[in-house]
Amino acid sequence: MNKKLSYNVAIVGATGAVGKQIIRLLEERDFPIQQLKLLASKRSKGTIVEFKGKDLVVEEATPESFEGVDIALFSAGGKTSRSLAKIAVAKGAIVIDNTNAFRMDEDVPLIVPEVNMEEAKNHKGVISNPNCSTIQMVTALKPLYDRYGIERIIVSTYQAVSGAGNQAINELIVQTKQILDGKEVTKEILPVSSLPKKHQIAFNAIPQIDVFEDNGFTLEEMKMVRETKKIFGDPSIQVTATCVRLPIIYGHSESVYVELKEEYDLKEVRELLMNAPGVVVIDDPANQEYPLATDSAGKLDVFVGRLRRDLDHPRALNMWIVSDNLLKGAAWNAVQIAEHLIRNDYNESK
Amino acid sequence: MNKKLSYNVAIVGATGAVGKQIIRLLEERDFPIQQLKLLASKRSKGTIVEFKGKDLVVEEATPESFEGVDIALFSAGGKTSRSLAKIAVAKGAIVIDNTNAFRMDEDVPLIVPEVNMEEAKNHKGVISNPNCSTIQMVTALKPLYDRYGIERIIVSTYQAVSGAGNQAINELIVQTKQILDGKEVTKEILPVSSLPKKHQIAFNAIPQIDVFEDNGFTLEEMKMVRETKKIFGDPSIQVTATCVRLPIIYGHSESVYVELKEEYDLKEVRELLMNAPGVVVIDDPANQEYPLATDSAGKLDVFVGRLRRDLDHPRALNMWIVSDNLLKGAAWNAVQIAEHLIRNDYNESK
Repeated sequence: MNKKLSYNVAIVGATGAVGKQIIRLLEERDFPIQQLKLLASKRSKGTIVEFKGKDLVVEEATPESFEGVDIALFSAGGKTSRSLAKIAVAKGAIVIDNTNAFRMDEDVPLIVPEVNMEEAKNHKGVISNPNCSTIQMVTALKPLYDRYGIERIIVSTYQAVSGAGNQAINELIVQTKQILDGKEVTKEILPVSSLPKKHQIAFNAIPQIDVFEDNGFTLEEMKMVRETKKIFGDPSIQVTATCVRLPIIYGHSESVYVELKEEYDLKEVRELLMNAPGVVVIDDPANQEYPLATDSAGKLDVFVGRLRRDLDHPRALNMWIVSDNLLKGAAWNAVQIAEHLIRNDYNESK
Repeated sequence: MNKKLSYNVAIVGATGAVGKQIIRLLEERDFPIQQLKLLASKRSKGTIVEFKGKDLVVEEATPESFEGVDIALFSAGGKTSRSLAKIAVAKGAIVIDNTNAFRMDEDVPLIVPEVNMEEAKNHKGVISNPNCSTIQMVTALKPLYDRYGIERIIVSTYQAVSGAGNQAINELIVQTKQILDGKEVTKEILPVSSLPKKHQIAFNAIPQIDVFEDNGFTLEEMKMVRETKKIFGDPSIQVTATCVRLPIIYGHSESVYVELKEEYDLKEVRELLMNAPGVVVIDDPANQEYPLATDSAGKLDVFVGRLRRDLDHPRALNMWIVSDNLLKGAAWNAVQIAEHLIRNDYNESK
């Protein structure tokens, strides 16, 4: 990709929950677009989407779709990325991939711009966007990592259904209405659409996001473990995660216990967070102010509150981290990467 | 209280969320009752409640209400307990108090029957029922405490609105309907009815239960800290808690990280839990089986699953603990105490 005044951009998964947000952000941010290609599965072919006042027709994503594309934003599931991303790269595009397909590949940078944008320089055509629950956590922990170092993290998540896509949002709404109307609940999508058993999400808490690994952790939990180490470039960081799906539409929340490597001053922690890029501190217990999922919806920032010293461990801090999982957790992080790419021309090593 | 064939029982807060469950349990368990007095605030006076096929009239709770009462189950808020419980004791009743009024008093036993029933022997008339989120956690941790010892606990909770009473249940239902109907949301009760600021609970996660203390933790979180130490009789146990209210009607869930004092075998842990009184293990990841709040509703047990070794700490275990907060978390624990009292005549020291 050479530096240009405007770029040919493709969005793969343009009708999905994340794809829709990417389109909205490219429009709002006035991203310098020459041509925008909206791609999706055969099923969504022909869908009309408005972009800057013009109607665009969604096309089926095929190997031929990527001719002349400079930047391709993939968000249509791991299978689509595995079959098409490398083809897009071969045709000259830089791929920013929002799926789990390549995140742990050694030659694929896993980027959160506030944390490790410089590593995007080493890309070989594909840059991965981390998992939503990881992105918001590492964005908030970055200033603490830089100042004190991080020994271990114990995190429990409170995740919105939109992280599982449009169908999961619909399932929550439908089930909620069914329960309020005293009808039987239909279960088709959650917790994992590809697995046989389904559980009610309305008025419930499901301690499973993605499939289980042999160690008893889910893939979502292991994403938080592995991606955190990779993004900080520090395999010594210990991470324990419990990921839970909840009847929330937009906004993931996280209860984070973090043991720093050095003793800290709580006032300094607050100042570091207040000055950290992409982080907003909402932390005024006396006035019952703390981050809330509903307040985060539609916003680009990561919100941090409930900052408090651990009662027992002198180097431990407790915090509550909230962000819109479709924005900073997905679409915004991807668009941010694209904006950095065109500003800084991170393509020397390609 | 002398040993009798049947007892005069009073329920203070008989029309509340917990009081209703106590009445249902006394009926189902065929508790040996001579006379049942249903007491509540002036507002609920005259309410008719069916008990074993007979209509009982709710009376206003006054000092005179406790004449001849053997066992008084209080669940009408701390203020009512503080004004009437000691009067009931002076008139000869044993009080089982479900509020926070006396829990940390040195001369008041804080009882979870599966953990420390023998301490009820030392009561001076009042026995306290612990906080809902504490009860289910210590019930599940008891066999691990006995076998390995417990060094520290880091818990994040997923709490149902019913823990905040009937009005909070109603608020969740009303707000949910308002959102589905595209109407403005009314906020009157949650997170804390006595505090000025209200937050939407429908489709949200509120990281505040009860008032804040000066250390940045909420009272609910500090209850988990203090009560756990008192119930185990072990102030050395370190506890860090984050308590969160969620759009769930019945059933609290808890993500618990526990560091034991000795290394453990996961199979043995599973067996200890399977044989523990009041505990049911639901833990089959391959078949997507784990405890769910909706499945716990209406049941008396504490459900445990997602058992897994920590990835880093050799003595740490992660688990997911779920129970009906109105039953084992409140009404059932209180009725259990009453059943033990009449079986074992724990009133020597009174």
